[in-house]
Amino acid sequence: MSQNPSHRHAPEGDLVLTAFEGVVGAANLLATVGDMARYLVDARGRYRGAALCVVRPANTAEVAATVAICARAGIAIVPQGGNTGMCGGATPGAQGRSVVISLERMRSIREVDPANSTITVDAGCPLAAVQEAASEIGKLFPLSLGSEGTCQIGGNIATNAGGTAVLRYGPMRDLVMGIEAVLPDGRIWNGLRGLRKDNTGYDLKHLFIGSEGTLGIVTGAVLKLFSQPAASAVALVALPDVGAALALLERIRCEFGERVTTFEVMSDSEYQLVLALRTELRSPLAGQAPWYAFIELTDAIEALDLRTALAETLGEVMEAGGINDATLAESGAQAENIWHIRHSVTEANLKAGAAVSHDTSVPVSRVPEFVAGVEDGIRTRFPDAKSYFVGHIGDGNIHAIAIFPREKFLDPQRFSEVAGEVNALVDEVTVSLGGSVSAEHGIGRSNRARLQRHKDPIELEFMRQIKRVFDPAGLMNPGILL
Amino acid sequence: MSQNPSHRHAPEGDLVLTAFEGVVGAANLLATVGDMARYLVDARGRYRGAALCVVRPANTAEVAATVAICARAGIAIVPQGGNTGMCGGATPGAQGRSVVISLERMRSIREVDPANSTITVDAGCPLAAVQEAASEIGKLFPLSLGSEGTCQIGGNIATNAGGTAVLRYGPMRDLVMGIEAVLPDGRIWNGLRGLRKDNTGYDLKHLFIGSEGTLGIVTGAVLKLFSQPAASAVALVALPDVGAALALLERIRCEFGERVTTFEVMSDSEYQLVLALRTELRSPLAGQAPWYAFIELTDAIEALDLRTALAETLGEVMEAGGINDATLAESGAQAENIWHIRHSVTEANLKAGAAVSHDTSVPVSRVPEFVAGVEDGIRTRFPDAKSYFVGHIGDGNIHAIAIFPREKFLDPQRFSEVAGEVNALVDEVTVSLGGSVSAEHGIGRSNRARLQRHKDPIELEFMRQIKRVFDPAGLMNPGILL
Repeated sequence: MSQNPSHRHAPEGDLVLTAFEGVVGAANLLATVGDMARYLVDARGRYRGAALCVVRPANTAEVAATVAICARAGIAIVPQGGNTGMCGGATPGAQGRSVVISLERMRSIREVDPANSTITVDAGCPLAAVQEAASEIGKLFPLSLGSEGTCQIGGNIATNAGGTAVLRYGPMRDLVMGIEAVLPDGRIWNGLRGLRKDNTGYDLKHLFIGSEGTLGIVTGAVLKLFSQPAASAVALVALPDVGAALALLERIRCEFGERVTTFEVMSDSEYQLVLALRTELRSPLAGQAPWYAFIELTDAIEALDLRTALAETLGEVMEAGGINDATLAESGAQAENIWHIRHSVTEANLKAGAAVSHDTSVPVSRVPEFVAGVEDGIRTRFPDAKSYFVGHIGDGNIHAIAIFPREKFLDPQRFSEVAGEVNALVDEVTVSLGGSVSAEHGIGRSNRARLQRHKDPIELEFMRQIKRVFDPAGLMNPGILL
Repeated sequence: MSQNPSHRHAPEGDLVLTAFEGVVGAANLLATVGDMARYLVDARGRYRGAALCVVRPANTAEVAATVAICARAGIAIVPQGGNTGMCGGATPGAQGRSVVISLERMRSIREVDPANSTITVDAGCPLAAVQEAASEIGKLFPLSLGSEGTCQIGGNIATNAGGTAVLRYGPMRDLVMGIEAVLPDGRIWNGLRGLRKDNTGYDLKHLFIGSEGTLGIVTGAVLKLFSQPAASAVALVALPDVGAALALLERIRCEFGERVTTFEVMSDSEYQLVLALRTELRSPLAGQAPWYAFIELTDAIEALDLRTALAETLGEVMEAGGINDATLAESGAQAENIWHIRHSVTEANLKAGAAVSHDTSVPVSRVPEFVAGVEDGIRTRFPDAKSYFVGHIGDGNIHAIAIFPREKFLDPQRFSEVAGEVNALVDEVTVSLGGSVSAEHGIGRSNRARLQRHKDPIELEFMRQIKRVFDPAGLMNPGILL
């Protein structure tokens, strides 16, 4: 705790800080602007806030004691994991009246149970550490995200994280068997059950998954493990249109069943953007095509030569005119090159101009209508923007991005207005197709207005009432989600 | 509606009946004891009740109008599907003051979307009809239960049904993408989204799944479809002990990954009971063993000769002393014979004596301790009973059954007391191993006391508060679950 008087808070604030210090020790109570800095901005630098202090508990009991102090003093709480979320859900607001509780010191693997295929971990465990612990016993924890080195399991649960293996293994919601959480009054709920079946009433765990820190703080979890893949095949396919991607997905699913682990698509506009901006990458395909699909098959056993089988199927589809071209990775390096193209999208878009990105999901069958609707809308209503598409077509989750010339928006206020108009256009198409305005990124701070606009009023009403049940004082992550 | 004065209710009751008749028509309002009879007793004949009337709406709007009448009149509602549940959750109580709303006329397949791999159905659709509709487009709806010909999708959702394919595909909870429900005030909540990803707040759908009709009436659902299996292998294995079953499961999972669709076990006591009572069945194994495993592998493609591969693995495990004996079905008829043994358990137990059955789950790794604990306890505390075990070991869900000589319990009251003592013994072992007293059957009417005794008080508290949020007047399925 800072002893520098220039950083001191009001006397009642001091009492609270002393109480926090009693729980976590001076070294884990950060109250100076300098010490707190890295907790007050998200990983991408999009959201900045202020806080009374940052508390870094070492275990669940310390989280509970910290929350109990906040509850008594009426102080708002911002739970924070890796702070890598896309919507500002873990960054405090600007008022500086809340306490950030960082889970970063809670990184233990509590238990590995191979016969139950489960792992029990602290919420502060980085995702990569859980993947590693699973791999050490020859198992797989399948959640896979760009930020896996720094994002934490608690944040993955609070945001119901998605990523590139959802098609096969589902999102975080499907991978969590039990949770432990500190409730807004400081009580600990131990729901760390490693049970594959439990029909004893309402499933409270599912309320916490995706609740973005608004119902309590997840402090631990029991996670499902799977067989490790022993074989894989990676292909990049050139397609005449996005509808052809759907037909190909259906065909490949028919022939390979659950082996289809990843099926991503990219519009040519996006593909060329990546290649132009990352000149070290080379397209493994000879020419250009309107769309591309990135496919990975995996199998827990090597009974089938997946590469040859996939090559045969793609050959047949090409014969029939369903695809323009295809290439299969013949080595790990070639596979890596293909994934590198897919993973360079965020960087390429950042460099390309002023980007307005979306995280839409629609039923898989409606993806072509979604793409056409957004493309048309942007062309006619924002003629100086260009539209780009990339995403998880197997999940119906296509990210539509409108990029404007950067020089158009020297005034950030003007950009924010136009971004709102683009959002409204994309949301209109989304809602007309029975889709969701946030497939995997969540609501956080940035999508609240869109949630209010597009969510069923009955659901909003029950969400508010459930929030009041768990957090009647409204201290958990205020300004987030609801 | 009955015009027979001897069956007439009090005048205010008559007004309500007239209102119901206005909604569903005279033919679908049943108010005589005779007409109502089959709705007042569950499929196994274990629970009997009475009702003001039975209403059979044709669609969601009629359900909503019926519920709205009940809400205004303060009349309790018992939602009813196939009435095949094990715990009396769909049978009205004895007072006769509630209205049974039967979904049996709502049996439409509303939409099939092959490219989205979803099917949208009325809640009154029998499970088998959904399986068939999926199969017609070359897909699989994997939920599989003994009662699949008569149980309904709405009931499967309300009870989070399990069955024999949970190991691979998960319980009903994992198969539901969206629901439509009539809320206790008569409003319709349309949550029929066919989205594989949707991170826009608390997941209300998961509250309804497993809520046993206490939060509202599920009237429709969007369900996930899968690739149909093209190949399968079925084996029956003799084992030295239940621990050997776990080791075998682990080995087979390692070698076959997600192909392991079913892995059930049975104690020799149960196996002999089935063979003794169903003399037309023959054991496909030469001798006796303490335990048996029933295994099915399936694959969406025929790339691997599953039968030969499984035979090789079982041969290796037998060489190493891990199993006593094994036989692989060489034809559909042989596979059927093996499953027939497994499926004759309920009937065999009914015939064998006065049975006290349990539906326990523990972490998969703790199954041997559970079996040993229950076996010891029954031997020492109930020396005239014998213990039997059968169940889904891959889900940690073993049904323990204590069977007493029938002549011991000529007095049903005495049986009910002893059954309570046996339950207490089994529950004690269950809870000490971090298990659940109801893995797949639910709570219903019969397990309420056990829920109160063993459920975490924090969870019970939040369950009650959530119930009040949705159903403040307490009209939805009173006496069930909470």
